[in-house]
Amino acid sequence: MRIFDITVPVSDSVPVYDGDPRPRIDTVISLENGDAANVSAICCGVHTGTHVDAPSHFISGGRTSADLDLSKLVGACRVIEIAESIDEIGPDELGDISGIERVLFKTKNSSFWNDLSGDFRTDYTSFSPEAAQILADNSIKLVGIDYLSIEKFDSEDFLTHRILLEREIVILECLDLRGIEPGDYEMACLPLKYIGGKGDGSPARTILIKR
Amino acid sequence: MRIFDITVPVSDSVPVYDGDPRPRIDTVISLENGDAANVSAICCGVHTGTHVDAPSHFISGGRTSADLDLSKLVGACRVIEIAESIDEIGPDELGDISGIERVLFKTKNSSFWNDLSGDFRTDYTSFSPEAAQILADNSIKLVGIDYLSIEKFDSEDFLTHRILLEREIVILECLDLRGIEPGDYEMACLPLKYIGGKGDGSPARTILIKR
Repeated sequence: MRIFDITVPVSDSVPVYDGDPRPRIDTVISLENGDAANVSAICCGVHTGTHVDAPSHFISGGRTSADLDLSKLVGACRVIEIAESIDEIGPDELGDISGIERVLFKTKNSSFWNDLSGDFRTDYTSFSPEAAQILADNSIKLVGIDYLSIEKFDSEDFLTHRILLEREIVILECLDLRGIEPGDYEMACLPLKYIGGKGDGSPARTILIKR
Repeated sequence: MRIFDITVPVSDSVPVYDGDPRPRIDTVISLENGDAANVSAICCGVHTGTHVDAPSHFISGGRTSADLDLSKLVGACRVIEIAESIDEIGPDELGDISGIERVLFKTKNSSFWNDLSGDFRTDYTSFSPEAAQILADNSIKLVGIDYLSIEKFDSEDFLTHRILLEREIVILECLDLRGIEPGDYEMACLPLKYIGGKGDGSPARTILIKR
């Protein structure tokens, strides 16, 4: 069994989506200060690093990340490679997705993670509303992409997000697919579980498995 | 495939270990305020809810949670049930653990999670240093228990932690095993990945799978 970690790490310097809070990791108890142990604390926006979007990210009263169906987050998964020249994935790029439950798109974005501390970039490859509609029509459970948003940067209607989230398709963003060959894998994507109604998304450690 | 979620959720009111920071979840961008989306932020100690301890929790310069070997966190797992009368798991309670790689102990502690917002309790079942030494001698990869610490509350030497962490055995704490029958499962335990040297532990969504 080979395990591939496709998670972009959270750090003080990782790029975050324009306007999102910056992550911080602080030491609150430390051996160096004579305490019995080291204990750190993390503060971050829930769309930091590799993360899921829950329906409540764009839909008032929508399902939160803790309520995402785990059977959507764990199971068979296809990785599709998109040519570097493509800036927006449209219907022509999807290929045959019949029978696929989870799909991750490896684009030019993955190379952005050669620098884990750069500024937020707006020139990422996104996913068109027309392609999102095809995923919705094919009852896809989860779709992933390799930068901080699946939506074109200057979108005003956020239609790709809306089409997917209204159908409760899990959106997985900010993957690092640099080391991943296109093909079929098993995946596990496990977001944090926090309750209290504010979980519009969550950082989610995500792995692919090849047996 | 059945998936069992054995994760104790993080919330504003979940019990935390004595002295650890309290978690907070805040809304920072909201549809209600006319923003384009909902975005929340989470702040928590890294030993909140179901979480892993990394060696650096007790060992200066030890491995951090992002550097934990994923092959220790994913794979075959045995759940062992401990009688309610037992307050400290010792060698006699372990039974035959030969050939086991990951082991979770279901104790009276799991019933504490009938109340997800109670105060921190000190009367939890813990794991003795003598039993920890047996796990270490058997090259166990991961050991889990169902309250906030594997160590007896009034310990001054934290020997159970030290024995396990010096051998780089992953300690998984604060599981909710209420609904889990003892026996063999597959498990996936996926801590957050944050870098920068402060990861002495991490909240970790954890599931068991029965195929």
